[in-house]
Amino acid sequence: MNETIQQIQNHRSIRKFKNEEITQKQIDEIIQSAQSASTSSYYQAYSIIGITDPELKKALRDVSGQQYVENNGHLFVFCADLNRIYNSQPKEIQEEMVVNLENTEFFMMSTVDASLAAQNAALASEAMGLGICYLGSLRNNINKVNELLDLPKYVIPIFGMAIGVPDESPEKKPRLPIDTIYHENKYQLNQPGIEKFDQTTVEYYQSRSTNQKVERWSEQVGKKLRKPMRMDVTDFVKSKNLNVR
Amino acid sequence: MNETIQQIQNHRSIRKFKNEEITQKQIDEIIQSAQSASTSSYYQAYSIIGITDPELKKALRDVSGQQYVENNGHLFVFCADLNRIYNSQPKEIQEEMVVNLENTEFFMMSTVDASLAAQNAALASEAMGLGICYLGSLRNNINKVNELLDLPKYVIPIFGMAIGVPDESPEKKPRLPIDTIYHENKYQLNQPGIEKFDQTTVEYYQSRSTNQKVERWSEQVGKKLRKPMRMDVTDFVKSKNLNVR
Repeated sequence: MNETIQQIQNHRSIRKFKNEEITQKQIDEIIQSAQSASTSSYYQAYSIIGITDPELKKALRDVSGQQYVENNGHLFVFCADLNRIYNSQPKEIQEEMVVNLENTEFFMMSTVDASLAAQNAALASEAMGLGICYLGSLRNNINKVNELLDLPKYVIPIFGMAIGVPDESPEKKPRLPIDTIYHENKYQLNQPGIEKFDQTTVEYYQSRSTNQKVERWSEQVGKKLRKPMRMDVTDFVKSKNLNVR
Repeated sequence: MNETIQQIQNHRSIRKFKNEEITQKQIDEIIQSAQSASTSSYYQAYSIIGITDPELKKALRDVSGQQYVENNGHLFVFCADLNRIYNSQPKEIQEEMVVNLENTEFFMMSTVDASLAAQNAALASEAMGLGICYLGSLRNNINKVNELLDLPKYVIPIFGMAIGVPDESPEKKPRLPIDTIYHENKYQLNQPGIEKFDQTTVEYYQSRSTNQKVERWSEQVGKKLRKPMRMDVTDFVKSKNLNVR
């Protein structure tokens, strides 16, 4: 198999890093790779914030609740950013474009732009032998992250990414059967693969080397989703003038 | 430079394909690569719909308004999907989880999940020598796409992706200067790189082999954003019970 595909399919999240910074050259490759992703209508509607200040890193660790957010080679925060476009325009065009910038389509589009860039950053990092972990956990207190990074209107943090030299080698986590994720021509409501996958996750959680448990996938996600989570995100996004129309 | 990074940084969108289908083995590699991406809390909150029916492909081409949406090796539609999770639960848990599924956080999260999977699909395709183009243009009539693919509640099409054997070799499109996209510790409102980039795009558009024009980046995005676009997306997303809380 092709080396790139092998690497893509060999992904696992790394949550324990060696105490080594990554180099400026590595950071440059990561950002240049992120920027090489497709971007909707050439908008490039995202920004990436690299955290070099130890106090700030600690504060973001507190938001995420996870130690490795502090102890890694480098911490990045990926933001959807429609402010750059807005700021680049004369006042009369700014006024006209607000009808677009503030609706759900542009909130969605900028979230996609940031995500495509991030996945390129992730794969470029892994190609250099580094490990990564996405940090949706920064949305545990999205207002705090916003404040820490001094984000203007039209900019919201989507997730963080911890990147560094791996100090663990976890098992690859199984995925839903292909016929559950991939449908032909029409959406298939009936997905018998889920039952099979529940059994797969039970076997995975029992056989893995750390944190063994007995849990079916559907049970796990159900348990998690019964509790209201991150209920402040809706109002936060609106407070940044996004998703309000 | 590492082969994978070289490939990532060498990306260009392909909009003209040879009249060759891609193989089932290639489709399997693409989907398996998509599934290998990180996924928020193991939710795997997306589905991919492969279009094999020529009539359906033609109908989606009509939505996008672009010929190559019909003439390519294979057409995929990436959907944010919270229906699978909902469907996998007993009734009493379904009722409890709605408070999460229907808020902005989960709309954002599932959009990210679909996007990370898609970027893996894109890079896996390019690693096999195929070309790709993202099709945000399917959101030109998102209600029509929804109807054509028979999507249930909690499932929305985010974008399409045309994949096939390239029949063109376009120039690489320049990107914003790194100090515009990448900030340290705080968001930088002042981004002098934009002016430089405006000059870069003028030179790029004048020197490229097809469709030459004189246009600055800020002028181009400003022109585009003055006209209200895809104003039905907000209500469409809500009609699928997403982003309503």
